[in-house]
Amino acid sequence: MQSQLEFKGYALVDPKNFTDLKVQSFKPKPFEDDDVEIAITHCGVCGSDVHTLKQGWGESKLPLVVGHEIVGKAVRVGKNVQEFKVGDRVGVGAQIWSCMQCRQCKDGYENYCPKQVDTYNAEYPDGTVAQGGYATAIRAHQQFVFPIPDAIDSKDAASMLCGGLTVFSPLVTNGAGPGKKVGIIGIGGLGHYAVLFAKALGAEVYAFTHTKDKMQDANELGADHVINTNDKMRLHDFAKPLKGQLDLIVTTMDATPELPLKEFLSMLYVHGRIVDVGIPDMDKPLPQLHAFDLVPNGAYIGGSHVGSKKECLQMLKLAAEKGIKPWIQEMPMKDVKKAIEAVGNNTVRYRCVLVQDLN
Amino acid sequence: MQSQLEFKGYALVDPKNFTDLKVQSFKPKPFEDDDVEIAITHCGVCGSDVHTLKQGWGESKLPLVVGHEIVGKAVRVGKNVQEFKVGDRVGVGAQIWSCMQCRQCKDGYENYCPKQVDTYNAEYPDGTVAQGGYATAIRAHQQFVFPIPDAIDSKDAASMLCGGLTVFSPLVTNGAGPGKKVGIIGIGGLGHYAVLFAKALGAEVYAFTHTKDKMQDANELGADHVINTNDKMRLHDFAKPLKGQLDLIVTTMDATPELPLKEFLSMLYVHGRIVDVGIPDMDKPLPQLHAFDLVPNGAYIGGSHVGSKKECLQMLKLAAEKGIKPWIQEMPMKDVKKAIEAVGNNTVRYRCVLVQDLN
Repeated sequence: MQSQLEFKGYALVDPKNFTDLKVQSFKPKPFEDDDVEIAITHCGVCGSDVHTLKQGWGESKLPLVVGHEIVGKAVRVGKNVQEFKVGDRVGVGAQIWSCMQCRQCKDGYENYCPKQVDTYNAEYPDGTVAQGGYATAIRAHQQFVFPIPDAIDSKDAASMLCGGLTVFSPLVTNGAGPGKKVGIIGIGGLGHYAVLFAKALGAEVYAFTHTKDKMQDANELGADHVINTNDKMRLHDFAKPLKGQLDLIVTTMDATPELPLKEFLSMLYVHGRIVDVGIPDMDKPLPQLHAFDLVPNGAYIGGSHVGSKKECLQMLKLAAEKGIKPWIQEMPMKDVKKAIEAVGNNTVRYRCVLVQDLN
Repeated sequence: MQSQLEFKGYALVDPKNFTDLKVQSFKPKPFEDDDVEIAITHCGVCGSDVHTLKQGWGESKLPLVVGHEIVGKAVRVGKNVQEFKVGDRVGVGAQIWSCMQCRQCKDGYENYCPKQVDTYNAEYPDGTVAQGGYATAIRAHQQFVFPIPDAIDSKDAASMLCGGLTVFSPLVTNGAGPGKKVGIIGIGGLGHYAVLFAKALGAEVYAFTHTKDKMQDANELGADHVINTNDKMRLHDFAKPLKGQLDLIVTTMDATPELPLKEFLSMLYVHGRIVDVGIPDMDKPLPQLHAFDLVPNGAYIGGSHVGSKKECLQMLKLAAEKGIKPWIQEMPMKDVKKAIEAVGNNTVRYRCVLVQDLN
């Protein structure tokens, strides 16, 4: 039998030393009829991992294995699973379970199920703590398992499953495509995906970065226009030439208190939207707004939570067809400390992907 | 010739005594080929008038005649005007001019024209100050003149043209209708219209008020459910039974800092929206949000600016067909002080309408 009774992973045991993960064994969730068990070959390092490890989103469960950009091989499939067979190359993103019974699940919004279970640091209804992908294996409900197209390498697919999908979902939800002007704020792990996908979807892409040395990167990623927002003297000026022009802005900035939100709102066309996918630590709220900031163009600001399976399949198909490759840095899983630090310090260009070394 | 070289109005001359308006003569804007000159019979008293008079939205021009819920008779029409003839009963709302050349105007979003001129306290491109409807007459660009259906009394039509349209526009823009659950926050001048129109459009209406004695009114206006948000002990509890339920919320609350925004966001279904049409004084921002508040349901919050002519005609047609009557208090224009105080103190039920007495 290919499934293991115990999995091993790089686990957080001491939040004071949150980059020093220790290899530990843990019991996986009980295997159920809708589950797929996956022997992990790759796992991306997401900003969420760092927020969780350093307790920025609140106290985490302990010990905890993070990681939710997972690719591997199916080694066991439950009897309700038709979509996958043992040996298939599959992936898992930031969500691992939903009830499949509620209005949201039935509408194809399983990523907004009120009972959803995150891939790690969350509890299944039976109380089992979900453990993530810096590990040998994982069990996931089939709805949250994605087939990886042959045209996409595992190392490239991994970070698409959270980082990619998190920006792809608001892009397609809000009609990014030919004839639309789409702004992307922040060229980082999420933002670089947003530029790649917005361009692949056919939109005219405006990239906004406050890091001068990322301007060239944004161009190479496919942005049609790159605007440096860093010059404080130009804080209000950079928005003026684009006033009322953009249909959609996706902001990936993690440091939301510093986001010049009013300026970006002013760039939107009538009923245009800013979607914020950057989720900073709990002590970093969005800049405060006045009703006046939303009136001149009837603008909206909103949020988004990863994406649905339907959107993930659409994203993988687009990536396969258009040969979209994320910019990644690969390293063995034992170098996880280096990866966490690079993501935390914003020095990674643009996603770290850990390669399995525990099996 | 029926047009006047000078109009007369009740004007603000001393902001320190902003309820003591003085009858003054003023020169209207030069009459142009797209203009309609209207002898005013009725003018509603809008919250905007009070904010402007008390300088809550910044220093106003002086002397200033406010009022932008105007009904009267066309007494002169420009040579480009086909839609109206002398003698027609017509109205004007909160906007009086736009460029009709820009993308917004061409898309039917003239209410979002960057060069728009408000009905008062604004400057035409030639520098003429726009003066409002607490006056004998007004000149307006035909795009901002609305034909009043025979089935609607002038006194009822007046406040529809700003108060009504301001809530009708976000309702129709966001699909309020059969099968949709629509929340209305605040039962006041705007909110009572929002309940009337949301119900007339076929939505299931949830009215939220923090004033216990308005609960019965909300029911009589047609709300299907009325929720009292006033009990501080229930601040977090009132939202729970409706978590994830509502498709749209229109908030008409003027006191936005006190709006329990996070609780209302939690009531939205996936990608549901809160549209804020309450615009308080400049020192009263919206409650601060964290990205976390927008993520669980991918919710949006946005603004809206009055409505387009197309929407206004749709609203008037609906009001005529369904016999929608606002709850108003009529008084002669000389009692404007009383009206301003009633609106400012939130004691009016639910709009004041001034009847012409200067001609």
